[in-house]
Amino acid sequence: MASNKQQFIDFFPRLVADLLRDLDEFEALPESKAWIKQALEYNVQGGKMNRGLSVVDALAVLRAQTGAELTTADRERATILGWCIELLQAFFLISDDIMDASITRRGQPCWYRQPEVGMIAINDAFIIEMFIYRILKKYFRADAFYIDLVELVQDVTFKTELGQNLDLITAPEDDVDLNRFSMDKYRYIVRFKTAYYSFVLPVAMALMLAGIQDPKAFQQAEAILLPLGEYFQIQDDFLDCYGTPEMIGKIGTDIEDNKCSWLINQALLLASTDQKARLHQHYGKRSAEDVAAVKAIYQELGLEQRFHDYETQSHADITGLIEAADPTLVPHQIFLDFMGKIYKRTK
Amino acid sequence: MASNKQQFIDFFPRLVADLLRDLDEFEALPESKAWIKQALEYNVQGGKMNRGLSVVDALAVLRAQTGAELTTADRERATILGWCIELLQAFFLISDDIMDASITRRGQPCWYRQPEVGMIAINDAFIIEMFIYRILKKYFRADAFYIDLVELVQDVTFKTELGQNLDLITAPEDDVDLNRFSMDKYRYIVRFKTAYYSFVLPVAMALMLAGIQDPKAFQQAEAILLPLGEYFQIQDDFLDCYGTPEMIGKIGTDIEDNKCSWLINQALLLASTDQKARLHQHYGKRSAEDVAAVKAIYQELGLEQRFHDYETQSHADITGLIEAADPTLVPHQIFLDFMGKIYKRTK
Repeated sequence: MASNKQQFIDFFPRLVADLLRDLDEFEALPESKAWIKQALEYNVQGGKMNRGLSVVDALAVLRAQTGAELTTADRERATILGWCIELLQAFFLISDDIMDASITRRGQPCWYRQPEVGMIAINDAFIIEMFIYRILKKYFRADAFYIDLVELVQDVTFKTELGQNLDLITAPEDDVDLNRFSMDKYRYIVRFKTAYYSFVLPVAMALMLAGIQDPKAFQQAEAILLPLGEYFQIQDDFLDCYGTPEMIGKIGTDIEDNKCSWLINQALLLASTDQKARLHQHYGKRSAEDVAAVKAIYQELGLEQRFHDYETQSHADITGLIEAADPTLVPHQIFLDFMGKIYKRTK
Repeated sequence: MASNKQQFIDFFPRLVADLLRDLDEFEALPESKAWIKQALEYNVQGGKMNRGLSVVDALAVLRAQTGAELTTADRERATILGWCIELLQAFFLISDDIMDASITRRGQPCWYRQPEVGMIAINDAFIIEMFIYRILKKYFRADAFYIDLVELVQDVTFKTELGQNLDLITAPEDDVDLNRFSMDKYRYIVRFKTAYYSFVLPVAMALMLAGIQDPKAFQQAEAILLPLGEYFQIQDDFLDCYGTPEMIGKIGTDIEDNKCSWLINQALLLASTDQKARLHQHYGKRSAEDVAAVKAIYQELGLEQRFHDYETQSHADITGLIEAADPTLVPHQIFLDFMGKIYKRTK
């Protein structure tokens, strides 16, 4: 039996074939079909697929709670919704890379940097977004939860875009102003831009597939998964500065890119007047000297230890939230699985 | 009593207030709200609003058919859906302007060319798109046709994006190759990129508001409105070359921009080997000499007269389609109104 991940990956060609058949329904010409096929294969594959796989994993836990195993239909439906999240992710990443002027993504040039593509990538992102709703319609229109599922995806998409908006206007790359930063804004950006679609969405989809309708179940999932998503992003910000390239697979550039990260927000909270002045002077600049100056202040402020303290505290807090949650609404195992995957991760 | 158009315009501030209240539900911070308010006011207003107004006009005809007048609720609901089309239009125009590297739109700099905006415009377009579904949910969730309405907007959005895709890959501005052009492609692009959202969508929305469910009514509307939309776009292409700036409010640049327009496609159909060679040499270039050379070939081929012949024929064909249509499905007046607005227009 192939692993969960392998089965998930193996479904991708069927998804692409489905979507291309869908284009036939719209009488798309061969050159459009070829173009869109390439856009899908280039942008939807190659990620870690944690988000998509979480739908399958969470549904397995929900079925196990009633002593059942995943049926073939269960696995297929969870896999399809999992790929919908991967499509949503591709839609965001294609456009984020243009907005951030990024160079590479998943070890290859960003899609918009392909010579023939350029700004056409924006329309490709739109098409990939709409494919999600084509898939929902094809596979779930007969389900009682169909309209809730459509609204869920729309709602999460909208939240992600609101998070992205605040991120973009708080930390424009060419206009450094640390006075715009704050932990409140940081928390909003992290929850809206990342936690909803990465953590809440897969579990909400699995709850729907399991036939769960009680709004309290969805609220409980959100109440735990949002802090978990926040913790995940803070790890990400920490690793960007303190992880080695071998660990995280890239060279972190949050300081150069004027990112509104957890580290700079903590630094601004703790810094003396002098340290603040030095942060204002060196943050968001490209030279190695500027970056080193920022890192030196992080060092003076003991941010590495502060992160480890935060991590211990956050683990305790979230564990407390899980233990206090009603397991008949959502099985604890779903949250514990997520926690197990990310606690003290180094990549 | 204010005119239809004035009443439509007067609703806009209420729409914006609605959407900003909606942002409060997502706990958006003041700077995000201010940004998004500006994006709405800059991009959604200032058009001719023909598409949005058509929903109100078409519903009025449908009500008149049963001897009724528009109720206050009718007008409000049609106005709201009309503004949804204007939001959809704003979503397309913001992103089209980036993809086409356009300079101005509706007499002001394109949104992405505002110094503080830049590529953030892409995310603004996304937010404006999602606002449509927020509005549909707020005002129409209790209606039996709600899910059909959501799918209608998704379907039309997807078709527009497919038309845009074919347009972009057929006529990239920096890679002129007239061999990629053909009347078949032209017709696909025009129908998908323009006719569905500009002509079919407003009438389909009005049919839903009138409580019409018969799929034959929707099919009949589409069968007439798609050719009408094609005719509209062909006029647009003609006016781009033969209309004066005083008439059309801009200086046409389809030849310079390597546009897959009706005129170049007709020229390629009619041209001799020598004329074709000259078209290949001069089309899609910036200099006044190149443009003049292309226009000279259009002149040799008698394209101006060919357009007028097409216009007469098209008017006769569409009139025939309308006369042959079953008026109990969709009143002829809806189509005749559209025809009256666009036949032999000079702007």
